[in-house]
Amino acid sequence: MNKKQLVRAIQSQKSFLSIGLDPDLDKLPAHLPKNSEGVATFCKSIIEKTHPYCVSYKLNTAFFEVLGVEGMRVFDEVVRHIPRTHFIIADAKRGDIGNTSRMYAQAFLETFDCSAITVSPYMGKDSVSPFLEFKDKYTIVLGLTSNEGAQDFEMLSFENVFLYEKVMSKVATWGSEDNLMFVIGATQDESQSQIRTQFPHHFFLVPGIGAQGGSLETTCQNLLNDEIGILIASSRDIIYADNSENFAAVSGVKAKLLSSKMWELFEMKK
Amino acid sequence: MNKKQLVRAIQSQKSFLSIGLDPDLDKLPAHLPKNSEGVATFCKSIIEKTHPYCVSYKLNTAFFEVLGVEGMRVFDEVVRHIPRTHFIIADAKRGDIGNTSRMYAQAFLETFDCSAITVSPYMGKDSVSPFLEFKDKYTIVLGLTSNEGAQDFEMLSFENVFLYEKVMSKVATWGSEDNLMFVIGATQDESQSQIRTQFPHHFFLVPGIGAQGGSLETTCQNLLNDEIGILIASSRDIIYADNSENFAAVSGVKAKLLSSKMWELFEMKK
Repeated sequence: MNKKQLVRAIQSQKSFLSIGLDPDLDKLPAHLPKNSEGVATFCKSIIEKTHPYCVSYKLNTAFFEVLGVEGMRVFDEVVRHIPRTHFIIADAKRGDIGNTSRMYAQAFLETFDCSAITVSPYMGKDSVSPFLEFKDKYTIVLGLTSNEGAQDFEMLSFENVFLYEKVMSKVATWGSEDNLMFVIGATQDESQSQIRTQFPHHFFLVPGIGAQGGSLETTCQNLLNDEIGILIASSRDIIYADNSENFAAVSGVKAKLLSSKMWELFEMKK
Repeated sequence: MNKKQLVRAIQSQKSFLSIGLDPDLDKLPAHLPKNSEGVATFCKSIIEKTHPYCVSYKLNTAFFEVLGVEGMRVFDEVVRHIPRTHFIIADAKRGDIGNTSRMYAQAFLETFDCSAITVSPYMGKDSVSPFLEFKDKYTIVLGLTSNEGAQDFEMLSFENVFLYEKVMSKVATWGSEDNLMFVIGATQDESQSQIRTQFPHHFFLVPGIGAQGGSLETTCQNLLNDEIGILIASSRDIIYADNSENFAAVSGVKAKLLSSKMWELFEMKK
């Protein structure tokens, strides 16, 4: 998907929710086996009950890799279960020297055929560019993340310019609004307005509402633009909403509620 | 392995060479099938012929992930083929919020039972610390990398202190010389001496000799300490030295030569 197609998908779904699939064995509903089969059933059931209420799924590769040799088979099975109308993010935070980044890009954007992959910018241009070469795919680079550790380096200040601003300004020159997004944490409400002013037309992937403490209202107020311009990620509040055999239906209800609330905030801001 | 065990392994092997296993389907010897079976045979044959001449193997996860659902099965098969006397690095460049980094750490340091994993520091303390909690394992954090893109952010200067120096100084407080190393590129010969002065006792993983243009002699001169203190990574020059059915034996000869040369440089510097 390019930007126009993504905006169209959001408008068609009336949703800019990206459901995070972080399937933790210790948190699976009690009746499911605590193994790769259980994880596959868990994710697929949630997709079936939530897909009308979101426009995207974000699969966190760590939670699949921890399953060992079976991990990427389950990852693939889950990706294939997502309707092709939806924007599929491999939340992989990859990045390496050029020839290696090219392999990661091929793995996630071609072999597993995701719509996008998250990328860490530390190693610079040749670590990011290979991802940007894939047509109709998005590279989602870490800007200002939602976690406490964002203070350590991302918020380092160079003569009143933060590292994350330096990173975003430079990375923005390597791609376009059609193939490049940034991760901006929902917890970073003090910086969001300025980030939107500096990057008026880019999409942002926004994790950190709910369990991590970010506010949906403030984030929407700060970051929504007239093409929506954000994908709000939510994982634990939706996928672990219920521990019974009825878990997926409860996830569906949660997703519907959150998505409607988000859409109201967009309608109000228009 | 902790530091004492690693130094003992190096002295026993008379080698501080880490052979990089980056099995590119397009570069496999002509007689091997261009699939996951071919990759497994390729890596295992190279391990059989090179293990007397190195102390470590570094598996680049991208080259396994690009194989799709079979990738981590092959990764596991290759890891299991490495003698347990050797230091096994998952070159994965992972890093995410705390609960996700914990999953990556568990995947590579426990499930796949590697000795070490490379980690990207951009997201700060809670993205790095979970890796450091694994006993007798090493976390190898990106410091100053070997690629051209290192100029973009790692070499950003804050009042005459480079970002990579800020990163290394802070990260060093999160671990010890027994569980933390840094990646320092062989191409960064102008910065190496100062880095060694600032971090006299840490081990460094040093990629970038050969194909990337770094000098073995200069790197050894700048970075060796009296406990050796470095693992020199070499991949393409060794594993793609020959394209015939005899490829693994040729890799063995190359590894032996490089390793002897490195050991001479250490003996000379003592």
